[in-house]
Amino acid sequence: MTFERPLTEHPILIQEVGMRDGLQSAGSFIETDDKVSLIDQLSSLGLKKIEVTSFVSPKAVPLLADAEVVLSKIQRNPDVVYTALIPNARGLERALQTELDEVNVVMSVSEAHNLANLRMRCSESLEQFRIITRDSGSLRVNGTLATAFGCPFTGPVDSSEVLDWGRRYLDLGIDSLTIADTIGAATPGQVYSVATAFIQAFPGIELTLHLHNTRGLGIANALAGIAAGITRFDASLGGIGGCPYAPGATGNVCTEDLVHALIFDGYSCKVLLPELIEVVNALDVLLPGSLTGLVRTSGLRDRVHSMSEGLQSMLESV
Amino acid sequence: MTFERPLTEHPILIQEVGMRDGLQSAGSFIETDDKVSLIDQLSSLGLKKIEVTSFVSPKAVPLLADAEVVLSKIQRNPDVVYTALIPNARGLERALQTELDEVNVVMSVSEAHNLANLRMRCSESLEQFRIITRDSGSLRVNGTLATAFGCPFTGPVDSSEVLDWGRRYLDLGIDSLTIADTIGAATPGQVYSVATAFIQAFPGIELTLHLHNTRGLGIANALAGIAAGITRFDASLGGIGGCPYAPGATGNVCTEDLVHALIFDGYSCKVLLPELIEVVNALDVLLPGSLTGLVRTSGLRDRVHSMSEGLQSMLESV
Repeated sequence: MTFERPLTEHPILIQEVGMRDGLQSAGSFIETDDKVSLIDQLSSLGLKKIEVTSFVSPKAVPLLADAEVVLSKIQRNPDVVYTALIPNARGLERALQTELDEVNVVMSVSEAHNLANLRMRCSESLEQFRIITRDSGSLRVNGTLATAFGCPFTGPVDSSEVLDWGRRYLDLGIDSLTIADTIGAATPGQVYSVATAFIQAFPGIELTLHLHNTRGLGIANALAGIAAGITRFDASLGGIGGCPYAPGATGNVCTEDLVHALIFDGYSCKVLLPELIEVVNALDVLLPGSLTGLVRTSGLRDRVHSMSEGLQSMLESV
Repeated sequence: MTFERPLTEHPILIQEVGMRDGLQSAGSFIETDDKVSLIDQLSSLGLKKIEVTSFVSPKAVPLLADAEVVLSKIQRNPDVVYTALIPNARGLERALQTELDEVNVVMSVSEAHNLANLRMRCSESLEQFRIITRDSGSLRVNGTLATAFGCPFTGPVDSSEVLDWGRRYLDLGIDSLTIADTIGAATPGQVYSVATAFIQAFPGIELTLHLHNTRGLGIANALAGIAAGITRFDASLGGIGGCPYAPGATGNVCTEDLVHALIFDGYSCKVLLPELIEVVNALDVLLPGSLTGLVRTSGLRDRVHSMSEGLQSMLESV
């Protein structure tokens, strides 16, 4: 058996989704100015993309009802792609009134989950995407394939069907794809196999893995994705986010834990880790008790504790 | 770049250490009969080894002061190896008065950590091991190399020194080795490289990886160990245990999360997962609030939620 360290000459790019995927289910409304402050801090940390908010019905997701205001107030860093989730053409209309680099359209490849989550059949979502790509103008469109590794209602998802949906997205003119483990059901072998299939099927297309840590496999799945050749990962600071179908479970793979793992395991990742942890500390003040990330409390792996005087003198004595 | 799925024809063996590494720092004393009940339940679940307790000074570790009583009361399954930790020859004397298959001697390869943890220099620990292997009779002796991936006081640990200590252990007559990431500092690449070196240096010697999830890398590290050829892993039910030098951090890699990952990622692992989760639920009653394992609350990855009638009828309508 051989094993090649899945090192890559390409830097691993981290895309922060906590402001959308995390705050949409954060339990309490984060004040608009606090959101703006967090996003402004995140903008200087080497993150490739920030999903700022979501243009969904404020009735459905009241915690992100301030989407337009947040987008009007943040400071932009030209090295960061600012994106927002839209579920339908109505979302695009709102997004076009704001300053954005990209919209992120989302559909669950599982019909049951798409109905439960978006109240649309997959065919209806695709029709929305057709309108969106037609009307998006210069705005990039990223397409997310949700429940790509499993559906909470109907279970297993056929990888070849996920690939077919990816092809349909691209045929509509969607620019890039996100393969999403919405409910944290993916395993490393599955991630490796699906990622490999996507890379082979769609050479040159920007691919992102969106992982959740619901069952403790978030980082292992990310490493499997890197081994397959994926270089872009969504992650959520503090590990916020969640899954309505996995009560008590953690959310998205945690940005600072993932960045820590990558940096110390020898990958090229340009995110500024200590500064990122400062932002997570600021978030922790706003969302007390709900952060699941580990590195923030444990310290980095190279943390050295000072020795007591007694220990020091024992160590130095012959 | 190639990647071979690190499947192995050998089953992956799980060794439960929660009753020792977890309960020694559990915060409150678990009643002896409750310990016995937990161990008896664990004995029928397909675990290869159970570390029942520790023969350390009851003053140093009062939560395990009932070591002899626990060992006198448990029911033994002949397929399970029952082991207990001993730090010194005094521990062996106590262990020999009980019915055990193995003792587990431990030393930190970092002088500073060994002094802090055991109040002995490494040379003194090794002298104890010499006495222990001489006097252990028919008892197997496993030797743990603690802080093999990093020391909380002095930082990096040279892998070749860890290997040297392993050789000294074996030269004394120690039967098997455990490479321990005591403070959860290991990364997958490091685990792969150290595990490979041990397998090459000590062919035929039983090797265990003892991992902590302090920084979220427990399962990723286990998979890296499997890729290198390791088939034995310590784990702790509920993820109990901890690290005094990583406050707020989680403990050992969680047994049920690891077993879940292995089973659903296609490895051969004979541990009965639903029954194991029942034992964790029983532990949770005894240690409320301190369990960090995720699968117990999220459910297994193939968990299917029932659809509401409304969703069902939407799905069925044309």
